[in-house]
Amino acid sequence: MKTNAALSALTEALRRLPGIGPKSAQRMAYHMLQHDREGARQLSHALSEAVEKVRHCERCNTFTEETLCALCMNAGREQHLLCVTETPADMLMIEQTLAYKGLYFVLMGSLSPLDGIGPKEINLGKLISRATDGVVTEVVLATSFNNEGEATAHYISEMLKARGIRVSRLARGVPVGAELEYVDVGTIARALLDRRTT
Amino acid sequence: MKTNAALSALTEALRRLPGIGPKSAQRMAYHMLQHDREGARQLSHALSEAVEKVRHCERCNTFTEETLCALCMNAGREQHLLCVTETPADMLMIEQTLAYKGLYFVLMGSLSPLDGIGPKEINLGKLISRATDGVVTEVVLATSFNNEGEATAHYISEMLKARGIRVSRLARGVPVGAELEYVDVGTIARALLDRRTT
Repeated sequence: MKTNAALSALTEALRRLPGIGPKSAQRMAYHMLQHDREGARQLSHALSEAVEKVRHCERCNTFTEETLCALCMNAGREQHLLCVTETPADMLMIEQTLAYKGLYFVLMGSLSPLDGIGPKEINLGKLISRATDGVVTEVVLATSFNNEGEATAHYISEMLKARGIRVSRLARGVPVGAELEYVDVGTIARALLDRRTT
Repeated sequence: MKTNAALSALTEALRRLPGIGPKSAQRMAYHMLQHDREGARQLSHALSEAVEKVRHCERCNTFTEETLCALCMNAGREQHLLCVTETPADMLMIEQTLAYKGLYFVLMGSLSPLDGIGPKEINLGKLISRATDGVVTEVVLATSFNNEGEATAHYISEMLKARGIRVSRLARGVPVGAELEYVDVGTIARALLDRRTT
């Protein structure tokens, strides 16, 4: 409809959100205009604020509003341990375990040559200089256990070992709480290979 | 993380979109900040523009930026036919069929007493005065064929028939292109009851 440029523009803009197709975008636009104009105002403000303020931590690459993120500035963390994750979300998951007290480096992606994502796009140069600063002694690779994540871990591992840095990888095995009957065969095979003496 | 107020505010605001939970909101926020800041700016602008400009057509209740929507202002439409839909999306679907040349009334919802949506919330008073303006001779009910939509259609039908307006409902039956084997029994039963002499 010709008289609805603002509504069409909103529906179009919502489609730029990941995973949102034309039907969802239309539903969202109608919902916000009909039932939650205050929410729409809030979202508009939050978007422009975030675009304005959020940048990357100069040390670990995660999102932050300062030069360095809160974690990198925390002198209480173990400075010789560096955990490499693909995304800030993965980093938050590891923080939630309370099982890790070191620092982080966030790649903001994983190697995927077919999508044009090479070593440069995931900041590997920055990771190398960070890991070889003389303080870091061990790099823990916590990339995903899918093809891209494994390839990324392998590539980083080779590069860092060549520079004399100790590299480790999150353990693979049967998930906590899992019943063997329902675990996939590949995972059980890996858990057998990596079995530990108790 | 304390240094990330803008990022948290964005994730929170994204959760006000319908169907978006915490994980999706986080993923959207990261994606927009990492890969599409221009899209985030556009969405921010589109939201505030739409909140500012979009209102309801005074005649048919759909979204528009003018006093009357383009359809209501179109003198070429059949003025005596009024089609009642639940949402502007449903109205667009009917327009796409090119099988209807009359005007519309958009309820912006359907009766749902348990959710506190009564006759007033879906503008039934406005519909009654619109349908009894002396020009409209037939009201076509195009609410959904679920419980709420059927109840809404029944309620409107009773009210309008009491005022001497002819009321019709979209036909129920087997969808075009459907193979009987895969159509639900209720639909086939209804199609049998409503069978037409050819």
